[in-house]
Amino acid sequence: MTYCAGLLVQDGLVMIADTRTNAGLDDISTFRKLHVFSWPGERTFALATAGNLSVTQSVVSLLHEGVHNPETGELDTLIGVTSMFRAAQLVGRAVRAVREMDGEALSEAGVKFDISMLFGGQIKGQPMRLFMVYGAGNFIECGMDAPFLQIGEHKYGKPILDRAVTFRTHLYDALKVGLISMDSTMRSNLGVGLPIDFIVMRRDADEPELNRRIEAGEPYFHDLRERWSAALRAAHTAIPRPPYGPTTG
Amino acid sequence: MTYCAGLLVQDGLVMIADTRTNAGLDDISTFRKLHVFSWPGERTFALATAGNLSVTQSVVSLLHEGVHNPETGELDTLIGVTSMFRAAQLVGRAVRAVREMDGEALSEAGVKFDISMLFGGQIKGQPMRLFMVYGAGNFIECGMDAPFLQIGEHKYGKPILDRAVTFRTHLYDALKVGLISMDSTMRSNLGVGLPIDFIVMRRDADEPELNRRIEAGEPYFHDLRERWSAALRAAHTAIPRPPYGPTTG
Repeated sequence: MTYCAGLLVQDGLVMIADTRTNAGLDDISTFRKLHVFSWPGERTFALATAGNLSVTQSVVSLLHEGVHNPETGELDTLIGVTSMFRAAQLVGRAVRAVREMDGEALSEAGVKFDISMLFGGQIKGQPMRLFMVYGAGNFIECGMDAPFLQIGEHKYGKPILDRAVTFRTHLYDALKVGLISMDSTMRSNLGVGLPIDFIVMRRDADEPELNRRIEAGEPYFHDLRERWSAALRAAHTAIPRPPYGPTTG
Repeated sequence: MTYCAGLLVQDGLVMIADTRTNAGLDDISTFRKLHVFSWPGERTFALATAGNLSVTQSVVSLLHEGVHNPETGELDTLIGVTSMFRAAQLVGRAVRAVREMDGEALSEAGVKFDISMLFGGQIKGQPMRLFMVYGAGNFIECGMDAPFLQIGEHKYGKPILDRAVTFRTHLYDALKVGLISMDSTMRSNLGVGLPIDFIVMRRDADEPELNRRIEAGEPYFHDLRERWSAALRAAHTAIPRPPYGPTTG
């Protein structure tokens, strides 16, 4: 399983991904699901992936090597695209290329071609954008009304995002709330686990401001989890008990 | 969609269910999903249902009318069972009876026989128990380690239950936390909505202590939602921003 969230706020973009993969509960390991493609001063993209690991890793490899363009006969790459929209289309084409290569064999083996991805970034001089790419290679774009997108096990961590994130949220508050959302997910679903990778991209900056991994025991995240637990405990304790009196009916 | 939770704590049982049903987003209405079978002084059972409404309503009707017993030729009813285990088995048999009647036609129409139920209660002089009954009529029992069960859209509201409920939780705190869990679900999923039905059964009492509906605008629940929102806002605001400094890598 997987949980990834992307938050696109006024000052920039945060993308967070866990690293736990499992092929059955008895085969759990750690794989990077957040991939950064950066040409400092020119363009930076980040891709967070959920779903079948062989498929998503192939998509990442294709994006590095270039996706065959049947019209020109050339390999299209992320350094060559002229807009974020074209970049998202390229990711979609990479997904379709993998489906073409592996889809039939996977289907015969009873494996679903079931993936989704968050793809965000900025090309210098153009708007910063965030997309969710589906298994058919189509995609939607994150807007200002609900300035986040999620993939994987997204339901546990959605309530706090719904409540706490607006387009005007401070960039590092967006990171903080994203980490709380990740914490809620990890607590309720063993399929999502540490370490956590994240990237912070400030709008119009020349390169990612932060591209880090949080390991177990990392002091800030540990403190965040403790504080959040204590605050939730205090919050529900402070709410009065229901005043309803005994009745039957 | 649906969200129902059952909490079995030291002093008793709380069961909560929303009432929203939808056959497509353009066909939303209100149906009771929490059903109480009570013989004061003798036994009380509560059944909360999720999934295909025609199936779950048929199960409830069968439980009222009695489930045919092929060995005795008689109709078995909840008033006749000798233990909570037998009662849960009877619910499972009712599910299987509906599958036998309707399963093939549903399948031909492309409708999944996809239901789940929470079934809890107590027979005088015996332990209070809570079960989750699946679409195959099999069931699991709630234990003391994680003293709650959920059906339907359960993920949004699971984190708060994971954090806040233990077997020693006060009965009305269990109700309160269950309502917070319902609130989190309603905020993030339009398929779950007011009014909410709930029942509170105190262990070894002669009848349900509370069997009520919360409508929109009900003062306590409105206040709970406001307080919870404010407390969550205060909680994430109080956590310091991440101290990570700019790096790339």
